Amino acid sequence: MAPRKVTIIGSGNWGSAIARIVGSTVKTHSDEFQPEVVMWVFEEIVDGKKLSEVINTEHENIKYLPGKKLPANVVAVTDLVESCKDAGILIFVVPHQHVPKICASLKGKLKPGTIAISLIKGLSGVQKDGGLRLVSDDINESLGIDVAVLMGANLAPEVASDNYCEATIGTTKQDQGEVLKKLFHTDNFRINVVQDAHTVELCGALKNVVACAAGFSDGLGYGDNTKAAVIRLGLMEIVKFINEFYPSANLETFFESCGIADLITTCYGGRNRKVCEAFVKTGKPLAEVEKELLNGQSAQGPLTAEELYDTLKVNKALEKYPLLVAVHRICKGELKPSQLVDCLRNHPEHAGHGFKK
Amino acid sequence: MAPRKVTIIGSGNWGSAIARIVGSTVKTHSDEFQPEVVMWVFEEIVDGKKLSEVINTEHENIKYLPGKKLPANVVAVTDLVESCKDAGILIFVVPHQHVPKICASLKGKLKPGTIAISLIKGLSGVQKDGGLRLVSDDINESLGIDVAVLMGANLAPEVASDNYCEATIGTTKQDQGEVLKKLFHTDNFRINVVQDAHTVELCGALKNVVACAAGFSDGLGYGDNTKAAVIRLGLMEIVKFINEFYPSANLETFFESCGIADLITTCYGGRNRKVCEAFVKTGKPLAEVEKELLNGQSAQGPLTAEELYDTLKVNKALEKYPLLVAVHRICKGELKPSQLVDCLRNHPEHAGHGFKK
Repeated sequence: MAPRKVTIIGSGNWGSAIARIVGSTVKTHSDEFQPEVVMWVFEEIVDGKKLSEVINTEHENIKYLPGKKLPANVVAVTDLVESCKDAGILIFVVPHQHVPKICASLKGKLKPGTIAISLIKGLSGVQKDGGLRLVSDDINESLGIDVAVLMGANLAPEVASDNYCEATIGTTKQDQGEVLKKLFHTDNFRINVVQDAHTVELCGALKNVVACAAGFSDGLGYGDNTKAAVIRLGLMEIVKFINEFYPSANLETFFESCGIADLITTCYGGRNRKVCEAFVKTGKPLAEVEKELLNGQSAQGPLTAEELYDTLKVNKALEKYPLLVAVHRICKGELKPSQLVDCLRNHPEHAGHGFKK
Repeated sequence: MAPRKVTIIGSGNWGSAIARIVGSTVKTHSDEFQPEVVMWVFEEIVDGKKLSEVINTEHENIKYLPGKKLPANVVAVTDLVESCKDAGILIFVVPHQHVPKICASLKGKLKPGTIAISLIKGLSGVQKDGGLRLVSDDINESLGIDVAVLMGANLAPEVASDNYCEATIGTTKQDQGEVLKKLFHTDNFRINVVQDAHTVELCGALKNVVACAAGFSDGLGYGDNTKAAVIRLGLMEIVKFINEFYPSANLETFFESCGIADLITTCYGGRNRKVCEAFVKTGKPLAEVEKELLNGQSAQGPLTAEELYDTLKVNKALEKYPLLVAVHRICKGELKPSQLVDCLRNHPEHAGHGFKK
């Protein structure tokens, strides 16, 4: 197979951090990948200059990843269709609400055999029958191509600083998994590939809800024990949720970076935790705290909590998920943050004499 | 069965925190337990007074848990044999090196049917054939009684402040599990019982080694991604170790409080993390840092790492456990802390194309 062209669809903080990795690996694996990586950039004017031009001349995304150089073989292109022309691999790394429009623009314009990998952490939405839609479902159905996912304990600024970390690729096709591993695996970004793609993607979305609960716990001044209990019970609800709605899930996937590791990182260093802690401490509305703290980025947790709530309600399963439900109700102002622990006290996990295997 | 007398063997920080719980639950379950809880106290003079007398008059352990009242039905007794006379349940909560002497004193002096539960986090040692000895093995073999264990994400000061948390009881006998759950389960101390007692106990010991690695990572200034990778790889080695040496282990036990939750708490708020972070930052010997920071308590992690190393060496399995081995070598000065990540880069977890189920 001829070396494939790689296009990164997105140029935010995470997209730019990933461009540093992919710009390097395509050179190492020149038999697999073309030497130039195209990055689709939504054009903006920054300090009076076009962002795409700054990227192509100074090799730095001065707006979303200032202070870190991009490899010179990463080339910014502002026309979406042109950026993906003849691409063999598309890396989706944009806010999830932009996916439908992007896919509509690309429809019928991709070459046969193109595959995608989504780095987007969030859900696409809830269907009328209560089923969840994943971002990978949107891409797959709209473009008719195979979609893998990459998730893990990957706070973008730390990845951009080349700190050692891990990530998980989920794909159902072994040959694609092997190629994608080559595209992302470096000395400091260690990849495992698993077949259980839905679980990988769902972990990436659901952990943000647990991080909200961890943030409430921090805001209330409870210590490490309570926070660990919140994280554990949150994980148990994630496992239960995925098993209930995606029964092919494998328990071992939760031990990958996309599972416990990302959950831990997000519950200690992520933006959902931070916003929810400040929400409790300041008493200000969530939207206001988000605006003050996140510099234009958004916290996905409250939105994902609402989507999970809607799904659970339609499926009459609210009482089995006290933590996920409590996060939604606290975000909506229906419960006080201090009621979080009351919701966990009689958790199904603690029911009965509990003599488990 | 007549209500059983409960004796707590130990009166340190953790023993005193547990006495607050047990002193309360025996009153709730007067059909199961006698109303008075005996606490064996190793006599010390504190501020010119006998510690046992202070506990019995002021209901406070002013040395090891100052500022927290003990229930008035918790009675300090300084004679070990007398404290355990006619006891139905013994709660072991002393430093593990004291266990052999305590058991020798109690041998032949217990009433038939007495059971024990160990709250001791650490290993008893390594046998000549390379097998590990657990603290519960010591108690069981020395006294000929059934021994359960209680482990979890339970930093003692936070338990003593009644912050919501969870713990896991491991026992192979369902009837004993049900009684012990009654003895420890409260509104803010939530118990699950599992059959997999060895796994519960081993998790409690092995997590301290991973916490050392987390402390090195913190001391080196790596961020949340690296720390999450260290915690995850540490957990994978714990799982592998227990499966290799105690093949009856159940993967689900690692999802209990004794597993991931205790690991998280210990890697963020525990003393092994703290000591190992300071070891890196100050460059002082481990023993000196421990003395400066722990106020007479000890960090079990380096000791446990040595015991694991000895076991792995005899069993020719060192190369399968790069993190556990690296912690030992760093503690011994054979490796620099900055070499930790080098040891993890080619972890067996990342080997091959890694297409896992």
